[in-house]
Amino acid sequence: MPWLRNFLQLSASYARQSPPPPHKSAAAIFGRASPAPSLTQLLRHFSAGSQVTYPGLAPTKGDEKPRVVVLGTGWAGCRFIKDIDTKQYDIVCVSPRNHMVFTPLLASTCVGTLEFRSVAEPIGRIQPAISREPGSYFFLANCTGVDFQNHQIHCQTVTEGVKTIDPWKFQISYDKLVIASGAQASTFGIKGAKEHATFLREVSDAQEIRRKLLLNLMLSDVPGVTDEEKRRLLHCVVVGGGPTGVEFSGELSDFIRKDVHQRYAHVKDYIHVTLVEAHEILSSFDDRLRKYAIKQLTKSGVRLVRGIVKDVQPDKINLSDGTDIPYGVLVWSTGVGPSSFVNALEIPKAPGGRIGIDEWLRTPTVQDVYAIGDCSGFLESTGKPVLPALAQVAERQGKYLAKLLNHLSKAGGGRANAAKDLDFGEPFVYKHLGSMATIGRYKALVDLRQSKEGKGVSMAGFMSWFIWRSAYLSRVISWRNRFYVAINWLTTFIFGRDISRI
Amino acid sequence: MPWLRNFLQLSASYARQSPPPPHKSAAAIFGRASPAPSLTQLLRHFSAGSQVTYPGLAPTKGDEKPRVVVLGTGWAGCRFIKDIDTKQYDIVCVSPRNHMVFTPLLASTCVGTLEFRSVAEPIGRIQPAISREPGSYFFLANCTGVDFQNHQIHCQTVTEGVKTIDPWKFQISYDKLVIASGAQASTFGIKGAKEHATFLREVSDAQEIRRKLLLNLMLSDVPGVTDEEKRRLLHCVVVGGGPTGVEFSGELSDFIRKDVHQRYAHVKDYIHVTLVEAHEILSSFDDRLRKYAIKQLTKSGVRLVRGIVKDVQPDKINLSDGTDIPYGVLVWSTGVGPSSFVNALEIPKAPGGRIGIDEWLRTPTVQDVYAIGDCSGFLESTGKPVLPALAQVAERQGKYLAKLLNHLSKAGGGRANAAKDLDFGEPFVYKHLGSMATIGRYKALVDLRQSKEGKGVSMAGFMSWFIWRSAYLSRVISWRNRFYVAINWLTTFIFGRDISRI
Repeated sequence: MPWLRNFLQLSASYARQSPPPPHKSAAAIFGRASPAPSLTQLLRHFSAGSQVTYPGLAPTKGDEKPRVVVLGTGWAGCRFIKDIDTKQYDIVCVSPRNHMVFTPLLASTCVGTLEFRSVAEPIGRIQPAISREPGSYFFLANCTGVDFQNHQIHCQTVTEGVKTIDPWKFQISYDKLVIASGAQASTFGIKGAKEHATFLREVSDAQEIRRKLLLNLMLSDVPGVTDEEKRRLLHCVVVGGGPTGVEFSGELSDFIRKDVHQRYAHVKDYIHVTLVEAHEILSSFDDRLRKYAIKQLTKSGVRLVRGIVKDVQPDKINLSDGTDIPYGVLVWSTGVGPSSFVNALEIPKAPGGRIGIDEWLRTPTVQDVYAIGDCSGFLESTGKPVLPALAQVAERQGKYLAKLLNHLSKAGGGRANAAKDLDFGEPFVYKHLGSMATIGRYKALVDLRQSKEGKGVSMAGFMSWFIWRSAYLSRVISWRNRFYVAINWLTTFIFGRDISRI
Repeated sequence: MPWLRNFLQLSASYARQSPPPPHKSAAAIFGRASPAPSLTQLLRHFSAGSQVTYPGLAPTKGDEKPRVVVLGTGWAGCRFIKDIDTKQYDIVCVSPRNHMVFTPLLASTCVGTLEFRSVAEPIGRIQPAISREPGSYFFLANCTGVDFQNHQIHCQTVTEGVKTIDPWKFQISYDKLVIASGAQASTFGIKGAKEHATFLREVSDAQEIRRKLLLNLMLSDVPGVTDEEKRRLLHCVVVGGGPTGVEFSGELSDFIRKDVHQRYAHVKDYIHVTLVEAHEILSSFDDRLRKYAIKQLTKSGVRLVRGIVKDVQPDKINLSDGTDIPYGVLVWSTGVGPSSFVNALEIPKAPGGRIGIDEWLRTPTVQDVYAIGDCSGFLESTGKPVLPALAQVAERQGKYLAKLLNHLSKAGGGRANAAKDLDFGEPFVYKHLGSMATIGRYKALVDLRQSKEGKGVSMAGFMSWFIWRSAYLSRVISWRNRFYVAINWLTTFIFGRDISRI
């Protein structure tokens, strides 16, 4: 009975850590709106400034596998979880979402080219051991802090949307900690951007954009809307001309030309897309490709505006040159910056505020802590540049680290503080495989050069679009989603996009 | 330019109806948070108790097609819209949702057997003319009242979820009005039911149930949850033993046996389903089938409780015999009653508060008004019983009424007040085709008797389940959704249900 074994282990660790009797303390934590002080309050009161303890997973013992705790379910974390050897380690994943988002295809879901579920991969499908092995878990929670000295993290459950249960805290001891918690959308402190714009990072963002777009399409058809208001409601403004912003603009113009013209014939002349970028769109791409993209986007009706956003209001954005741009839907994708969780960690940082790592992706000042993906960057002391916040960097790091930890465990370094003197082998080296972006109208850009100055193949057009589709289809993790993405593309091609607002 | 023609028509009707100049008045209505009094206020102020006018669609003129206004996008309204002859009529549909829900398959979406979009059919796919014809529209709005004397309805837009636009009012003149606005879930005045239970009527309800179920599955795995709380979180209680309640219980037990046991191995022993019914489950079915259903449900682990709910609290329900049933997810399906919109209409009602209709589905006291589906019932004077609130009744009425109105138009009775003296032909006669319900484990009930006392075939088991699937698959309206339902069933069979919580 793996479950029974596991439950006994949990209970045991719990009894060890919590001073009051287990039954009472747990009841105190979970009693909703209880008038008596909760365990948390009691402990805080009596602990005299020292460390507060909560229920959780105790340090692993000799007869258990060492425990790897992974924070986050993005590209880096999921690749790591997929590749880690579950015979060597128990995995505990802590994340506020139970799935990975296949971000390169997220823009396609906003207009219904793809379905939301086709780009979301549940963590249990990526690594089945997490839901089957008695010592492996997925916890729907946020990590609130790390006690590096005691090899322990503090967490709080995510309960958004459900009123009948209060969030609660718990702690997990780790043998190895992998921080892959990602970055957060950056607004460069522009007033109103957070409140009024939608970022394109989670499935829920795409759902919000789709609902808003369909609502505005329908509202603008109702009697009594002025022409001016109609134009505002149906004006989609995208801020940021990186691949995400360009792909979203391309998808949107496809949607307008193919679906809106047929299914919203009454308002088709009122819908427009504007892409605002302070510098150059697709700045990381080859010049020739950039020019091609500009030409194609303009041809599809996307208006390109060079400008710096000064201020965002509920129904318009103000540019620094004094122009006002009214909008009905505003999508923001100007890049990412460190999250508040990363900011609060007291370890050396890389340029840009990311968690500083060495060539083996370790945080050098503390034992057994690794950081991968958008939350991490090479320390200045390594002499290497901070890598861009790209899926392929994150995934490559996850893959490398899983291999490294598998190797350490086999060499006897799986437990906490046991890998100090081991040989870590080859350091992590990043080799850029190139960039791709679709621009709508069955066209895409493929840039296979290793750097902006490097030499190599770069191409644009239908063939690139075909490569883009095939490449992403083959990268989708599960066969189920691969099948669904293909089916979605097929049905969109035959029947058009789905426009029910659910 | 159909659009231009249509726009001119709108503007013209607008200028005719509204005293202030069109531009200013529209601006006054739409100016968000404008300190000046809105047009509505102004009109109300100056109209001295008489009728207030808003922008909208004016009465049709000689060179236009007559206008049928349909309220609602359920089974009745959508079948009507599908079958009405768009060469004879312009159609205007007013509904707070832009799609029809294929309700018999909604229960399957709660646990991921089917996807949400596979059971939602956008109105533009049911009747393409509504988005293409210059005089046909879909308006995302609620009807707030009907002025039967002036052949006009009053509407207010639905803007839920969007802060940048206030709802506004408009009015539509009709030649024919078809009320198909449905019923609303009935809670029999039980305290707390509306606040804490989820009804299973809209796609959003199914989404809420799925999110809550997956959240509770994950939360109950986090360290620090007592056994008691775990059992509560994972206790799904269904109130109401009609086909919806039974099908949902069956789907849920399938989900538990096939997916939870594999993917949530840590908590699988804590999840349970209880079905609460005051009388008998599936009371409209053959006794033999009912007994079969009870046996199968019990075998699948569904606990059947006979009891009357007295009171609903955030985490438990109280039965009238004093029993408390703690729950994590509560689904309510005890039948339907008249909506507040129907209650407010000042026309004769049928028993049970529905809109009273004669054998031709007309409301006899007013001209050109028809009512179909769950919102209507035969007047006592017809000597016929009120038909049950079933999809097949609603659909049959929609089909009959479309034929009737097509016939009237051809006979010269398409305009307002023009059908008074025409021959309406055969009255509507309902012939029950039988009932079906699935009970999980690849088993279903098929009862082909025409009434509870009648004779005919009734069967249960795998063959019935196959008939159930085939019948519904063939009833799904569009080829796109038919394709998706088949694909969903196939992938659920191969890969299991999708458990990402998005």
